[in-house]
Parts: sequence; structure tokens; C-alpha cells
Amino acid sequence: MPTELDNLKLRLREFAKERDWDQFHSPKNFSMAMIVECAELVEHFQWLTDDQSKELPADTLKEVRLEMADIFLYLIRLADKLDVNLIDAANDKIKLNALKYPIEKSKGLATKYNKL
Amino acid sequence: MPTELDNLKLRLREFAKERDWDQFHSPKNFSMAMIVECAELVEHFQWLTDDQSKELPADTLKEVRLEMADIFLYLIRLADKLDVNLIDAANDKIKLNALKYPIEKSKGLATKYNKL
Amino acid sequence: MPTELDNLKLRLREFAKERDWDQFHSPKNFSMAMIVECAELVEHFQWLTDDQSKELPADTLKEVRLEMADIFLYLIRLADKLDVNLIDAANDKIKLNALKYPIEKSKGLATKYNKL
Amino acid sequence: MPTELDNLKLRLREFAKERDWDQFHSPKNFSMAMIVECAELVEHFQWLTDDQSKELPADTLKEVRLEMADIFLYLIRLADKLDVNLIDAANDKIKLNALKYPIEKSKGLATKYNKL
Repeated sequence: MPTELDNLKLRLREFAKERDWDQFHSPKNFSMAMIVECAELVEHFQWLTDDQSKELPADTLKEVRLEMADIFLYLIRLADKLDVNLIDAANDKIKLNALKYPIEKSKGLATKYNKL
Repeated sequence: MPTELDNLKLRLREFAKERDWDQFHSPKNFSMAMIVECAELVEHFQWLTDDQSKELPADTLKEVRLEMADIFLYLIRLADKLDVNLIDAANDKIKLNALKYPIEKSKGLATKYNKL
Repeated sequence: MPTELDNLKLRLREFAKERDWDQFHSPKNFSMAMIVECAELVEHFQWLTDDQSKELPADTLKEVRLEMADIFLYLIRLADKLDVNLIDAANDKIKLNALKYPIEKSKGLATKYNKL
Repeated sequence: MPTELDNLKLRLREFAKERDWDQFHSPKNFSMAMIVECAELVEHFQWLTDDQSKELPADTLKEVRLEMADIFLYLIRLADKLDVNLIDAANDKIKLNALKYPIEKSKGLATKYNKL
């Protein structure tokens, strides 16, 4: 049975095909497009305090939600192009992070693993 | 029934809780962490040609896959903090994009919607 | 008389030429390299509070200083490739910003000009 | 005698002071603002080929030039806040790069120093 991610992948494939956009959709270009969307997310937060970023006004949250969607869509497209299963990759990464950040060493610290 | 994304969300929540990391996990800080991961992805592609980016060596692809996982994990965490359903947001965004990029106007063009 | 920026431009030109690197140095690739360096700067600040970011430990400041240098060097190289005079561009931009952000409208506000 | 960079630094200091903006201008926030500007630069190039990025239409170049100015201005402001001399930092970084990328090892290669 197709998952939610599978469905999005197929919709996006069709979207690009209908517009003849695959000619632009190299992994290199997707990495650029994704960081551009990510920066549009960052822009919403750049002058906010930490606390303000937790209590976004409704209209900002609406915009932030759509920036997140943009990042997600490019991530799904890139995964499709590179034949990466995002769920498997995410689970693998959590396991690696658990090794890099053992609870006893990293508790309460924002220190990068190579400086722990 | 919990979806794949729900499961990842819960694993990540637990991961942060065990390490007492929620104190650092404001939406503002997540946006920064996410763009840092995104840049690590970009770094893999920065000196490659378009064609080279489509034919990554196995070891590069392995690293790229884990950078993608990093972005995905931060996106899931941010969505959890802001109470955003990523699948719904993605579907909403695809609908908006279909309006911004009608097939007849955008076919074969990489032009931004506001310049179409 | 050559300025400080002129001298840096010429040193960097020579550096690239000696290494036969101009083949990689398209404006597109420079934009990617520059954002990667910028993210390395962001990484230093991502989990810090605002106040902590104002009082960096000496070793962090040393690293931050070199990340800033990286961004600066790519900016100078890109300006060289695109035949842009950075000082003139900066002065032009300050004038534009003064029009976009009149003192009486923007005083004490971090609001973007199009929402003022 | 004040240099071109000194003059820009002083103009920007005054610009912020008149608008009471120093309250927002932490190094953390500047790193975010700078990467946002950098992404606006990337956006201009994301769907272009390498060759197209070398032959920008006049109106694109005009926009690109101002994005470069934005990055430069934030870099100068951050340097002011952190008391960093950008010219000295740039010269130091070029020397470090010469050690990381000896001509004989890096000639014609875009390989990162730690993989040379």
C-alpha cells in the first residue's frame, strides 16, 4: 500500500512532468532551491526572540507552515531523483545520532558531538 | 493508526526529552539548525556539474542521504513544536503551486510565478 | 592607488589561477560556496542565546572570524567575476535602505519594509 | 586615514542608531540575516546553467549586485559588533588556504582539503 510520502512523490512527479520541468531538476539545483526555501523560513525568525518564535501570530504561522511545506516538497523530489527512502534514512540517522550523543554525555548540553 | 511520520515524531520527542534538549529547541533555533544541514547538502554539490550531481559516487550518495535525513528530522521536530501537519501542509502547497504555475504558462520555463 | 579590496581581489585571482580553479568558479557555484560558508557561521550561533552570541569565548570568536573571512573572500571573487564594485554597491544599497526604512516609520521596529 | 570599509562601518552604525535597531542586532541575528541575503543571491542562480550564470541579463545583474551589497553590509555590521578587522581576517584566511591547498596537490581539483 502506498504511504503518504509515496503519494506526495507521485503527485510531484506528475506536476514536474506536466510542466516539462525535469530538465531543471538536477540534484544540484534542488539543493539550491531547498536552501532558498529554508532561508525563507529563517527570515520569519531572524529578528524574533526565542520566546516570540514559540508564540507566532496566526498569519506568520500560516506563512511558516507553507515554507515548511516547500522544504518538504523539495526534499521529497530530491529523494525521488536520488532513489532515497526518506523514512529509512531518517531512522538510520536517529540510530547514528544516538551513538554520537549518548544520554549520559550530552544531557542538558548543546555541544556538538565532536566536542563532547 | 500512527503513520510513519507520527512514529518519527514520537521517537524524536523522546530523543530530545531524554537529553533535556527542549530548552534549546525553539522554532528560531530549529530554523538555524535546518539551514545548516541544508548547507551541508549544498556543499556536496557546489563544485559538481549538473550531470555529475545526477551520478553521485556511492560514498557521496551515502553522505548525501544522511544530510537529507538531518533536514527531514529537523523539519519533523519543528512541525511538532508548531503543531503543523506536514502532509496536509504539503498537499495545500501543491494546490497553491498549481494555481501559481498553470501548465500553459509555465511549461518548459523555470521562471518564477511573479515574472510569468 | 589600489585599495585594500583591490589587493585582496588580485591575490585571490592569482590563487585561483595557480591552482587552475577558474573552471569551477562560475557565479552559480560561488553563490553555493558562499552560502555554505555562511551556514558555518550560523552553526556557531544556532544553540546560543542572543546574549551568549555577544560574549563569545575566545576560541569560538577565532573560528567565527575565519568563517567571516571565508564569506568575504567568496564575495570578493564573485564581485570580480561579475565586475561589481562592492564599495559602490554597498553605498547604493544604503541609500535604497534609507528610502525603504524612513526613520520615523521604522524606529524601534524590526518590521520588513513591505509591512511597515 | 579611514578606509572605504571604515566609512561603511560608520555609516551603518549611524543608520542603526537612528532607527534604534541595535536591540535586534546580536551576532546570532546577524548570522541569520546574512544567510537570508545569501539565499536571495542563490535564488537568482538556482535554475541557471553554469554558463548562463556567467552571462546574466542586465536586470538580473542589477539585482544580484544589490544582493551582494546586502551580504557585504551585514558582514561589515557583524565585524563591527565582534570587533573583527575583515581585511586582516581575509589575509589570514588566504594564508591558511595556501597551506590547506598546496598548488601541487590541488591543481585542477575541486576536492576539499581533508580529502586531498
